[in-house]
Amino acid sequence: MRSKKRTKEINYGNRGVALESDINESNTYYVVNDIAYIYKKPTPIQVNRVNYPNRRDAVISEAYYRTPSTTDYNGIYMGKYIDFEAKETSSKTAFALANIHKHQIDHINNVLRHGGISFIIVNFTAINEVYLLDGNKLVEFVNAQPRKSIPLSYFKEYGHILKYKFNPRLDYLKIVKEKIIGDE
Amino acid sequence: MRSKKRTKEINYGNRGVALESDINESNTYYVVNDIAYIYKKPTPIQVNRVNYPNRRDAVISEAYYRTPSTTDYNGIYMGKYIDFEAKETSSKTAFALANIHKHQIDHINNVLRHGGISFIIVNFTAINEVYLLDGNKLVEFVNAQPRKSIPLSYFKEYGHILKYKFNPRLDYLKIVKEKIIGDE
Repeated sequence: MRSKKRTKEINYGNRGVALESDINESNTYYVVNDIAYIYKKPTPIQVNRVNYPNRRDAVISEAYYRTPSTTDYNGIYMGKYIDFEAKETSSKTAFALANIHKHQIDHINNVLRHGGISFIIVNFTAINEVYLLDGNKLVEFVNAQPRKSIPLSYFKEYGHILKYKFNPRLDYLKIVKEKIIGDE
Repeated sequence: MRSKKRTKEINYGNRGVALESDINESNTYYVVNDIAYIYKKPTPIQVNRVNYPNRRDAVISEAYYRTPSTTDYNGIYMGKYIDFEAKETSSKTAFALANIHKHQIDHINNVLRHGGISFIIVNFTAINEVYLLDGNKLVEFVNAQPRKSIPLSYFKEYGHILKYKFNPRLDYLKIVKEKIIGDE
């Protein structure tokens, strides 16, 4: 009974759970090997009611999911502030911008302007390809074209493909080092 | 009824709510004035049961507070990765180290070693004094002395007092700029 409930929660609360799980595992690899300290922020939850059988065992009995105000992941790598969002799409041709909130794009832009490194990782599940797209290219696209989605071709041209490995599963910091920090 | 419940929750979930509120207001000031992008991480909550009247209106009906694995606040300022924890104590003489988890101190140490800026802000409510203590000084104390608390005198000697202002309420980044970034 208990495990059934938990599965249900994970499926709902974490759409794109495969990508998220691969990134979380990679982040653990980075921490264990003292390479980077990057964490997923907890899902923001509005708590409305709590019961206290005693002080240590608070049970939340009524709460709601809230819209995140920033990106999901941030931390430090090679002295740099790192900030990104990870998404999955089942489309074979484009990534719908409805997947990213306007204030998240603003946040990515703010991080870049202040000298941080920011990007999105998008898993095109139907074709099994994962791309890292620099925040500068994301912001450039959004500002230039009043479109509702970013075509896959844009990821192919300006993004960097992430290949799955044994460990870390998705070595996105290798791309960050080579293609973003290396270019500065 | 509703507001009563909410008050109860805030008191429990956010002990040290006055300091937290002052820091959150200061962070908003920094964002609005394009000075820094620093946010409080959501409180980590383990969701065990969710009801779905429909897809948009998920109601969490059973959940628990989890222990945070990192610090409460992080973000970017002047191109630097910023990471800190804020605490209140009612003691007039010392800050009990039981207030900070061992893995949080490890996290602060890791951030410092990787070129980030990390510190704690402690509000001594009984004497109405707020101190910022550089993570280096915190780690130095913890490593050198097997003690259960940091005496106020240590904050007076190695910390930096934060004075309340109108706006931002607690201008901790001024201290970060002058005393931490300035010393690098």
